[in-house]
Amino acid sequence: MRKRYETSKNNVFLVYLIRIMKLQAGPLLSKINFPSDLKKVNKEDLLEVCTELRQFIIDSVSVNGGHFGASLGVVELSVALHYVFNTPDDLLVWDVGHQAYGHKILTGRREQFHTNRKYGGLSGFPKMSESKYDAFGVGHSSTSISAALGMAIASKLKGETYRHHVAIIGDGAMTAGLPFEALQHVGSSGANILIILNDNNMSIDPNVGSLKEYLTDITTSKTYNKVRDDVWKILGKLPGGDFNQKIASKVEAGIKGVVSKTSNLFEALGLRYFGQVDGHNILKLVETLKDLQKIKGPKILHINTIKGKGYDLAEKDQTLWHAPGLFDKTTGKINKVVYDAPQPPKYQDVFGKSIIELAKLNKKVMGVTPAMPSGCSLKYMMAEMPDRAFDVGICEQHAVTLSAGLATQGMKVFCNIYSSFMQRAYDQVVHDVAIQKLPVIFCLDRAGLVGDDGPTHHGVYDIAYMRCIPNMIVAAPMNEVELRNMMFTAQSEENTLPYVIRYPRGEGVMSDWLQPFEMMETGKGMLVKGGSKIAILSIGHPGNFVIEACARLADKGMEPAHYNMRFVKPIDETILHEVGKHFDAVITIEDGTVVGGFGSACLEFFALHQYKPTVTMLGIPDRIVEHGKPAELHRECHYDANAVVETVEVLWETLHVAHAAS
Amino acid sequence: MRKRYETSKNNVFLVYLIRIMKLQAGPLLSKINFPSDLKKVNKEDLLEVCTELRQFIIDSVSVNGGHFGASLGVVELSVALHYVFNTPDDLLVWDVGHQAYGHKILTGRREQFHTNRKYGGLSGFPKMSESKYDAFGVGHSSTSISAALGMAIASKLKGETYRHHVAIIGDGAMTAGLPFEALQHVGSSGANILIILNDNNMSIDPNVGSLKEYLTDITTSKTYNKVRDDVWKILGKLPGGDFNQKIASKVEAGIKGVVSKTSNLFEALGLRYFGQVDGHNILKLVETLKDLQKIKGPKILHINTIKGKGYDLAEKDQTLWHAPGLFDKTTGKINKVVYDAPQPPKYQDVFGKSIIELAKLNKKVMGVTPAMPSGCSLKYMMAEMPDRAFDVGICEQHAVTLSAGLATQGMKVFCNIYSSFMQRAYDQVVHDVAIQKLPVIFCLDRAGLVGDDGPTHHGVYDIAYMRCIPNMIVAAPMNEVELRNMMFTAQSEENTLPYVIRYPRGEGVMSDWLQPFEMMETGKGMLVKGGSKIAILSIGHPGNFVIEACARLADKGMEPAHYNMRFVKPIDETILHEVGKHFDAVITIEDGTVVGGFGSACLEFFALHQYKPTVTMLGIPDRIVEHGKPAELHRECHYDANAVVETVEVLWETLHVAHAAS
Repeated sequence: MRKRYETSKNNVFLVYLIRIMKLQAGPLLSKINFPSDLKKVNKEDLLEVCTELRQFIIDSVSVNGGHFGASLGVVELSVALHYVFNTPDDLLVWDVGHQAYGHKILTGRREQFHTNRKYGGLSGFPKMSESKYDAFGVGHSSTSISAALGMAIASKLKGETYRHHVAIIGDGAMTAGLPFEALQHVGSSGANILIILNDNNMSIDPNVGSLKEYLTDITTSKTYNKVRDDVWKILGKLPGGDFNQKIASKVEAGIKGVVSKTSNLFEALGLRYFGQVDGHNILKLVETLKDLQKIKGPKILHINTIKGKGYDLAEKDQTLWHAPGLFDKTTGKINKVVYDAPQPPKYQDVFGKSIIELAKLNKKVMGVTPAMPSGCSLKYMMAEMPDRAFDVGICEQHAVTLSAGLATQGMKVFCNIYSSFMQRAYDQVVHDVAIQKLPVIFCLDRAGLVGDDGPTHHGVYDIAYMRCIPNMIVAAPMNEVELRNMMFTAQSEENTLPYVIRYPRGEGVMSDWLQPFEMMETGKGMLVKGGSKIAILSIGHPGNFVIEACARLADKGMEPAHYNMRFVKPIDETILHEVGKHFDAVITIEDGTVVGGFGSACLEFFALHQYKPTVTMLGIPDRIVEHGKPAELHRECHYDANAVVETVEVLWETLHVAHAAS
Repeated sequence: MRKRYETSKNNVFLVYLIRIMKLQAGPLLSKINFPSDLKKVNKEDLLEVCTELRQFIIDSVSVNGGHFGASLGVVELSVALHYVFNTPDDLLVWDVGHQAYGHKILTGRREQFHTNRKYGGLSGFPKMSESKYDAFGVGHSSTSISAALGMAIASKLKGETYRHHVAIIGDGAMTAGLPFEALQHVGSSGANILIILNDNNMSIDPNVGSLKEYLTDITTSKTYNKVRDDVWKILGKLPGGDFNQKIASKVEAGIKGVVSKTSNLFEALGLRYFGQVDGHNILKLVETLKDLQKIKGPKILHINTIKGKGYDLAEKDQTLWHAPGLFDKTTGKINKVVYDAPQPPKYQDVFGKSIIELAKLNKKVMGVTPAMPSGCSLKYMMAEMPDRAFDVGICEQHAVTLSAGLATQGMKVFCNIYSSFMQRAYDQVVHDVAIQKLPVIFCLDRAGLVGDDGPTHHGVYDIAYMRCIPNMIVAAPMNEVELRNMMFTAQSEENTLPYVIRYPRGEGVMSDWLQPFEMMETGKGMLVKGGSKIAILSIGHPGNFVIEACARLADKGMEPAHYNMRFVKPIDETILHEVGKHFDAVITIEDGTVVGGFGSACLEFFALHQYKPTVTMLGIPDRIVEHGKPAELHRECHYDANAVVETVEVLWETLHVAHAAS
């Protein structure tokens, strides 16, 4: 596949040069290797440090890629925190983590920052094994308060009362259930913890739900102070002077009884609330943080920031600039890949477009996603049919149980959640969907190794954790047409069971994918290519690696059979009987863990029916796989086309020898 | 094992009689077979209906067992809901579900109610397949709002505007993250939904956390109305009459601006808030529900009830009477089982007592449980070391991430969660613990088939969903001493990995369990009994079934070997090599699903090393297993001692024939 960037040759050369060069930091920043260096900077120079740090992030992300808007939004906060607090003794937990580039650059990793998110390079998220300044690994949102509270309680028990514990969490992350659980404990714990609510009114996509409205409400400052002032003002004007003021005091006390405890969700939950503070005013932030350091107990500081701050285009289109890819930092032109021929679409877009077609055919079809409308492409349906497609915020649990509720009334709900985020709603899948046999359709986007985001985002376990649940159908398409047909089948009245469709991030393999829908028999795979001795059983996208491998093997005179199984569950028993009877060796291949996954499903069948082929399982190994390009990771994990070729060659040789000997 | 109840013979006879007799309902209740009958009752007779319904529940639970306090607390609410709403067209979702006995009795199941929670009988929870009045299956807490919202949105889309949707949720269930996620969506959805907050200040154990404080606060009625009245009262007394009243109106508006939107967590989230209402005043409830029927959109009614209402002892000790077992309803004496000889303790108590011993030896040891301190016996440590053991409320996600935070600071945290509830924190296990290799110790109580609670509570999937995660140790003790030694090992400095210890509900097998702690080598099983031809590999408690089976088989001249594997992961490779080399057939046995579980782990090992024994996997089959006594279910699922005997007999015969033929 030929692709090129829409840039001039000179520009390409420049990009290359910058990549191999270390990034150049400004004069102040270049002297800051660790927070101890930052602390030596004069307060009046902090503004300049922020400017240089922001520039460094722009320079780096424009040529290396990565998350953009979030880190720009917390440049001042990052500087202020490391200026005021005594890191790493004081513990900072950065929720979600892709906002932590500034933190990384200030804590010993400026020189390596050009390797950010690259194979073998720095992680795009804080990571405990990478730096002692990273108090907690983050990636999925909404974990920071619980983690920081654990640290604070430990410090208290150990008598380390000097230690501060800070959770930095966005308003988007705050919409999840976990922080609410944590806040209740924080409020009653008395622990020494500071929560910084970084309010930019955005997740990756704009925030939804009433918490957003609520935060906007307190932003418009209908606070206790305001009311109190109003009361004083009004009553002060009454005839009677002092007397009225006395009355007013009583009124004030009455109001305070209500308002000061409950004016505010956070105070209602037992935290002292401070704010709001302009999160881009570095001096004010430093001053506020110093004040808060002196206040013991649980407290929350509400700051307002702008995602993408300091880069105009990013401020204006925050979703696009969440992670824009490479761009020309001067013109703001995002480098789009252009191709010489029509290319296969992304699986995401096949989903996004097909669900609209289905919704037009079947008025029961609905779409639900927890905060991934752009990533999973449900946004198209949300725009076209806003009453039938929802973004419910970073609320995976709710997304699933809501879908179950909809399904009880006969709706055909496509609940689209990234594979690794589906882990957050596992009980809802078991308890609310599977036990009740509700035909909710789970589209697990980003299944398999996702690439640069790394271990927190790889969709490794879904086959294993889904197939062990009774009543589930677990399917994986090998291409775009299969995805469409699985979607079509899942929403049909013929399907009465929960139906999982898992597919990877990125491109499929068919440029002519827009074919008419066809029913796909549940639990039926297909023979891709006949052969002898060795049968290769593939599930999902890696079937394409097998096709490539088989072509190469044919050139060498080796002809294994290839079955595209399509379904992990129910598994195609006809194929497996055939394979069990007629083949000496079996290779299974999947883009999921080999522990309890598709390969194990085949082993269970063979054991039950006492077939005894030699089985080799290719897939994601039983260890944490780090970040890198998918192709790099497939190679590392030994389940790309090369791996199939090699595995067949070894088996072929062995079988040949065995055959010759017998 | 001989056991008897501490009751007189006559009493036993009486109990038996009542059991086989249908329960006798009072004169009004006996005419109410369905809500349509209830609707014919005069309003003034509703009080009597409540009395009879309450008595019926007491009569039934005292002789049949089951949950007690929760259903007594909502007798009036159950009657009022079915009196006012048009069920089953209107949809009621009863959170947690063990409060729904009244609902079941009023909706066609009075005559079968004596079979409640018995093998083949009614489920102890609402269940869609049991009755069209059960709009949603519940069992785990906190799902009702999401489910009812799904139903409400579906009704809106279908134009069924006549339909009401009601979620009944306790204050305990409200502390979880899921309802908070749901409330945000409810508030912004405009859906026609009524949430009834049944506030009794209890879960199974007393509620914890700041939401509880908050609810208490609003209970003491510092509401908008109160302040407004105060303001009017004070200002009305000022000289100036009308003028002051005008000023007061302005003040009121000012206060309202703050208070009416934010006085209240629920209003802050966009719901109309009503209450509080005495949940035991049937006429007031009926009147209020009729009023609320007329109000469109999302709304919440806050009612106050007493758990155990109407049964004095249950009101006074709500935890004990949550599910007291059988009791004499007149004296309130709970029938304790007494034994002729010392009995083995429950695994729960072995945990509860051993963790205190360990905490005394190691100051880093801590205990965390989400709302199960009585069930899992952490309550003993909470009483003795309140700063080192916490109940965090129905907040499984927070429990796990908090434990991870504690572990980063070197604490050795025992996080005790029932197996089926651990499903609610799966991502936290993967993302916050396993990826970071934090040595949190997960004690999964109630693993395997739990008995009467049925499918929502069976701990079936944990081996499968835990062993697929890298870095995890997954262990299961066969007896009390192994549990103690696994706990001892897990908290030692030698262990650096997350460590799962799963064990079933109920009795172990050793009366002399209080042995000194010993280190248990990770990943090492043991030979229980040597043998030939057939090797039985057991994990956890079912090893005891194998011991029993082997004794019986020996009498018949069959001598399979028995290995107690102890660890699913890392699995004992020495034993498996030995078995692979020397045995023709292998039986695996586990009290978990056979899909992707321990048996599959053995298959994966044999495949990798190309051993080809005949493998038979015993365990929980791939279907939803209903409720019943554990022994009944073990028999049904074919993994009790009989099943082992039968399986060995068949294999023995086959191998003998094969041997004779060769």
